[in-house]
Amino acid sequence: MRTTIMAIVAGLALCVTAAAGDGQREYISAAAGTDAAKLPFSNGVRVGNTLYVAGHLGLDPKTQMPPADVEAEARLVLDGIKATVEAAGFTMDDLVSVTVFCPDLAQYDAFNRVYIGYFNGKFPARAFVGSGPLIRGARFEVLGTAVRTQAPAEDRAAAR
Amino acid sequence: MRTTIMAIVAGLALCVTAAAGDGQREYISAAAGTDAAKLPFSNGVRVGNTLYVAGHLGLDPKTQMPPADVEAEARLVLDGIKATVEAAGFTMDDLVSVTVFCPDLAQYDAFNRVYIGYFNGKFPARAFVGSGPLIRGARFEVLGTAVRTQAPAEDRAAAR
Amino acid sequence: MRTTIMAIVAGLALCVTAAAGDGQREYISAAAGTDAAKLPFSNGVRVGNTLYVAGHLGLDPKTQMPPADVEAEARLVLDGIKATVEAAGFTMDDLVSVTVFCPDLAQYDAFNRVYIGYFNGKFPARAFVGSGPLIRGARFEVLGTAVRTQAPAEDRAAAR
Repeated sequence: MRTTIMAIVAGLALCVTAAAGDGQREYISAAAGTDAAKLPFSNGVRVGNTLYVAGHLGLDPKTQMPPADVEAEARLVLDGIKATVEAAGFTMDDLVSVTVFCPDLAQYDAFNRVYIGYFNGKFPARAFVGSGPLIRGARFEVLGTAVRTQAPAEDRAAAR
Repeated sequence: MRTTIMAIVAGLALCVTAAAGDGQREYISAAAGTDAAKLPFSNGVRVGNTLYVAGHLGLDPKTQMPPADVEAEARLVLDGIKATVEAAGFTMDDLVSVTVFCPDLAQYDAFNRVYIGYFNGKFPARAFVGSGPLIRGARFEVLGTAVRTQAPAEDRAAAR
Repeated sequence: MRTTIMAIVAGLALCVTAAAGDGQREYISAAAGTDAAKLPFSNGVRVGNTLYVAGHLGLDPKTQMPPADVEAEARLVLDGIKATVEAAGFTMDDLVSVTVFCPDLAQYDAFNRVYIGYFNGKFPARAFVGSGPLIRGARFEVLGTAVRTQAPAEDRAAAR
């Protein structure tokens, strides 16, 4: 089984493309040539001011498996979310909704300790859901929705 | 236990109703008289240009159980999603976000093989989440969000 | 492990705050001073006419554990959703999408019996998903999205 998400570290090259003939829609994909670029999903899709963020895992970029340390894995998954959000021109504080899937609820406090550091005091609505086993044995899979309200993303698109 | 979704095959009659006094909201329901029409959910709800697609299962219409073949089940569930999306005047390529729940991750590649055929090269943001057992022993439950950007759905509603 | 949601009964004081410098965004939080107010999520986040509702549990406010009766728990979780929705100036009928996570599908009919009473005949798109064990041993975790179409929430915010 291949992994769902390659864009698991901040700064990883991401590919942003607008759909042909559609000035309002952007697909955030893993960089061309990577395994993830061949899988049938985008890391994020932006329509207008709203960004739909795919389920991200926190895999070690070398082994493509979860790291031994739980907080390291939480950082990897949130760095991946951050990379996708920023590739679309959003910030973490634009996230309005987050869902965390987690097969082992004992990781709840560790996840929260890491999670808090990614926001400036206001938090998205969130569900923390006990799941079945996740792809690659990941401890967390995180998805979300972000909305820009300060400056329309359309302005940015129009300026290209 | 009754099934969540009857609209599991493309072409199945679906019922589209606008809420009283609300020109902007449409409910996509299973056809009147079916078991699913009695259950407390809509297959989809459209507000403006956004369609919220319910969790769909891929059940055999005769047995109301999953078919023996995993790819057949994946096609049934995606045909159901397609029927709901099209009943609201959208296409599969309008989907911006999809979540797949799956109790057995060994079905990941089979699902992807079928899934790719429903899109024209650009894919929604997606989460593929290991779940607990699903209703009726289904292998997949799929939900999503679609956004029309090419032509406002409001125009269509207004033209009625 | 602490609970995800304290706002589990209707009428519980909720705190609504607008983000600094952002007239369009509102955070619905548990009342200051409660345990839930220290956890890194909002019960709901409103942007424009859309409200993103966090995962709610149905815990007994005294014990912070699920009540013995399954329908009592379903009422607690939906009362919590209702409190969050109403704190943002929405109604239950504004919900367009709901996801229910449930570790034991045998609770499906009991949940539906209670759920039907919270709506006026039209139902949101819904997924009822078999999950892993939930926080605090809850039988249900429920999240959703609501959209106001009758009267813009912006009007309400602007009138303050």
